Amino acid sequence: MLNTRVIPPTESAHSTPLLIKSLLQSGVRYERTQEIIYRDQLRYDYSTLYQRVCRLANALTEAGVKPGETVAVMDWDSNRYLECMFAVPMIGAVLHTINIRLSPDQILYTMNHAEDIYVLVNSDFVPLYKGIEHHLTTVKKTILLTDGSDKGSDMLGFVGEYEDLLAAASPDYDFPDFDENSVATTFYTTGTTGNPKGVYFTHRQLVLHTLTQAASMGALDSNRLLGNRDVYMPITPMFHVHAWGIPYTATMLGLKQVYPGRYEPELLMQLIKQEKVTFSHCVPTILGMLLNAKGAQDHDFNGMRVIIGGSALNRGLFDAAKARGMRLSAAYGMSETCPLISAAYLNLELEKLDDNQRASCLIKAGVPGPLVEARIMDAEGNFLAQDGKTQGELVLHAPWLTQGYFREPEKSVELWAGGWMHTGDVATIDQYGTIEIRDRIKDVIKTGGEWISSLELEDLISLNSAVAEVAVVGVPDPQWDERPFALIVPKAGQTMDARILRDHLKPFVDDGRINKWAIPTQIAVVEEIPKTSVGKLDKKRIRGEIAQWQEAGAPFLSTL
Amino acid sequence: MLNTRVIPPTESAHSTPLLIKSLLQSGVRYERTQEIIYRDQLRYDYSTLYQRVCRLANALTEAGVKPGETVAVMDWDSNRYLECMFAVPMIGAVLHTINIRLSPDQILYTMNHAEDIYVLVNSDFVPLYKGIEHHLTTVKKTILLTDGSDKGSDMLGFVGEYEDLLAAASPDYDFPDFDENSVATTFYTTGTTGNPKGVYFTHRQLVLHTLTQAASMGALDSNRLLGNRDVYMPITPMFHVHAWGIPYTATMLGLKQVYPGRYEPELLMQLIKQEKVTFSHCVPTILGMLLNAKGAQDHDFNGMRVIIGGSALNRGLFDAAKARGMRLSAAYGMSETCPLISAAYLNLELEKLDDNQRASCLIKAGVPGPLVEARIMDAEGNFLAQDGKTQGELVLHAPWLTQGYFREPEKSVELWAGGWMHTGDVATIDQYGTIEIRDRIKDVIKTGGEWISSLELEDLISLNSAVAEVAVVGVPDPQWDERPFALIVPKAGQTMDARILRDHLKPFVDDGRINKWAIPTQIAVVEEIPKTSVGKLDKKRIRGEIAQWQEAGAPFLSTL
Repeated sequence: MLNTRVIPPTESAHSTPLLIKSLLQSGVRYERTQEIIYRDQLRYDYSTLYQRVCRLANALTEAGVKPGETVAVMDWDSNRYLECMFAVPMIGAVLHTINIRLSPDQILYTMNHAEDIYVLVNSDFVPLYKGIEHHLTTVKKTILLTDGSDKGSDMLGFVGEYEDLLAAASPDYDFPDFDENSVATTFYTTGTTGNPKGVYFTHRQLVLHTLTQAASMGALDSNRLLGNRDVYMPITPMFHVHAWGIPYTATMLGLKQVYPGRYEPELLMQLIKQEKVTFSHCVPTILGMLLNAKGAQDHDFNGMRVIIGGSALNRGLFDAAKARGMRLSAAYGMSETCPLISAAYLNLELEKLDDNQRASCLIKAGVPGPLVEARIMDAEGNFLAQDGKTQGELVLHAPWLTQGYFREPEKSVELWAGGWMHTGDVATIDQYGTIEIRDRIKDVIKTGGEWISSLELEDLISLNSAVAEVAVVGVPDPQWDERPFALIVPKAGQTMDARILRDHLKPFVDDGRINKWAIPTQIAVVEEIPKTSVGKLDKKRIRGEIAQWQEAGAPFLSTL
Repeated sequence: MLNTRVIPPTESAHSTPLLIKSLLQSGVRYERTQEIIYRDQLRYDYSTLYQRVCRLANALTEAGVKPGETVAVMDWDSNRYLECMFAVPMIGAVLHTINIRLSPDQILYTMNHAEDIYVLVNSDFVPLYKGIEHHLTTVKKTILLTDGSDKGSDMLGFVGEYEDLLAAASPDYDFPDFDENSVATTFYTTGTTGNPKGVYFTHRQLVLHTLTQAASMGALDSNRLLGNRDVYMPITPMFHVHAWGIPYTATMLGLKQVYPGRYEPELLMQLIKQEKVTFSHCVPTILGMLLNAKGAQDHDFNGMRVIIGGSALNRGLFDAAKARGMRLSAAYGMSETCPLISAAYLNLELEKLDDNQRASCLIKAGVPGPLVEARIMDAEGNFLAQDGKTQGELVLHAPWLTQGYFREPEKSVELWAGGWMHTGDVATIDQYGTIEIRDRIKDVIKTGGEWISSLELEDLISLNSAVAEVAVVGVPDPQWDERPFALIVPKAGQTMDARILRDHLKPFVDDGRINKWAIPTQIAVVEEIPKTSVGKLDKKRIRGEIAQWQEAGAPFLSTL
């Protein structure tokens, strides 16, 4: 370490720690009358939000929650979740946001592994919860969350119903200062192999993530994503990386916020219309669902901005949304990264391009935000050229990356091999710093000595007007090592087969964009494509199903 | 301290320190072709900026600069200054930005007190520097900055001319990581009593200040101050709290930046026109000078935003600027606060007001930004009501306040009495969190048992159409303790006397805004008002001069 002039600890006594409470206090100061809305059931202002967070902090403290203990939540996206995102860390406890789309066994695993002591359970999940209750090893007390009139529960250690507890608690709480490196939140990644892995983030990390998100989304003019007169509604579950951290940013800036509960397309549409939602974020599949929802067909989404992450944004979806007035913009991150790493950005040079070329920029993973350092690396740990062509694993530095997997020392060492966080994504970085994700390392298709990006193939196939949805994976081939295989859901009333697909892809071979081995010789025309709990293509399951279909000679396989 | 779950230091090995180099790297990534402009002499792009910062880092390292050592700069506002703001801290050294408007004795004092070892001196200041050279106790080496053709100098320890050194140095530098609590910058406050006092800021503090400034200036829509397609030119000296930190923010976001050298009104106007400057900041007196500059009379400043700080923004100036198309907005901070604490902000309630009422909001010190906590306190250390009426000393918490005065333990303890940073300003805070500065504690006028704000009186007097400039101070009075006394510079061709002033202020007494003792019974009609080195009213000198005039019965005194 260099011998710089470091402020001695005695003097830094006046240094203010970075704590989540500051974010809430900022929002209340900017906009005390701004609204928080939950479905068509509840609306209240920021002053009330602050009081409700205080009430919740008091209720949790009275229930026995101590600093350092873990408080878990099983809820749909709600104002209650937002309140927990503040109150739990603000009393020094750790918030575990349970992925309610995991299997009961996996949920049980994560709750025991995270050492949850308190659990807040939505009445919709009580049956699920009761099913695992007797296998929980650390939970002592439970609180019921409900939209209905049920106020009691036979869950073990039942403390009371959420609104009752808040009503009985004081609306004042003097939130303490503590070490900014205290863990604030934890949740589990939906890995496709082995047990879910726990990531965790500190107050310092979440404050830095929030400030950087606000700065980069608000102050970059050529693709401005967010301002505080926007109306925000998440369409990414709050259990999933704190809904990408945007509820913290929205609160700090005092935005109107709408929480939709379950993702019922008709309700989402109703809320978008009624509350004039202008800003959201989701994975591509969910956006597709929304655009095709009943009541959405004639809706003009003019001016609405939606950040797409979780999976690659393909050009077909970008154009479909644009035709409806919606401005899509890709961003990149993952559970391990808090999550924001990069977002689409048009610099002075790219800004001058035509609409078509600009669209090509806006669907890439984008440019890393301030404080992020991104590189690409080969398997031996060498940095590769940032020329927009050379592919390698994307590795990262940023002040808000998980410091490891909770109680998984070996996997943590692997994640941070060589002092860089390994994303498991194959990417290129161009001369503008723009990251383009080519594939997951394990989804790249290796054929005839070439690497083919399954994402790029999906993107090109999605351009065919008969294609509603597509997934491409590599399947074993004795001659070529692997061959690409496409699952396609055709649009209603449209036909698709391997011949049509070949004709569609041929021009891209001719212009050199893909090589001829990239054309799948066999495809499956299906009604649905398997997805993970967070709506991503589940390529592990897809590969398994293809093997079975091929063995069984399934009728929906089409071969050139 | 609470027993929270703190990340152990072994794990936090992967934590990225907050270092100034990230800010520069961010800007270069966003906008490598964006321009930095110095007067009409030099323009280059961000890629070149990065290379020049590397070259400077190499040149300084070759000259012997070690981490922890102090490098001082005496320059006008220039690209060179910007380069020093990055290169010096990025090699772990401390940048001392010398206030070139101090007296030679004071400059000498600050250089010895700060323990400057290297000094970069603009050729304009070489005569001044030569005058103190032999009294400098720590300086070893000197570098010449020049816009002309002089490449040599007889300064002791002369290393070379800046551009020569850069040209000879390598354009690559691998900037190291180090403790984020390392001091990055230092400079001296222009206290009106005693010696100047040194404040200092760390890498962590400057990064947090920059992120918060970008977030709060870019993402708040109702009074958005900054976006990265703005063209930025400071009209506040770079030696003064790093030009309010805005060069760091502008660089992180990739803005076009224009540095004007000396503040010659005609050149400023020429640069504003030629480079299409849209965003600046300055003290009120400088803005007045600009609006009245030759060549500015017919200029349409439409869309240009200027943040006013350093002194209160009065309504007369606000309206005069508005009539020319310029949007002024007050902000508050001081040398000790890095400096940004608060900025004018229109929340949902205030946004609905009429233009006149909105203007009243925009001239106040404004709402504290994220991570800032502001309170008002009485002399006994009790917090006072935030009702917009109760006055007390403004005290602060924020992660970027100076941790003390360099080598002044007693004054440091006083600054941080009771764990809050004392501003020495009397303020009110209203229900919206808006800070309104009433006065410096020592400038409040105590008359007949009442406290009168000299700032409020100046504001009301400035509304008179005959008044070009005004200063109000309290002068001793045997009967009333103190009485207000006004110095007035009338506009060309206008008359002013105590009777006209009384008639102008009478309505404000009638409507209860000020009490009748606030009307000065004696005023001085003068050609100029004494100011400090940073353009603020120098009330200490004003009080001294008034005492002399009164004793001498000066002819420009007008008595009721």
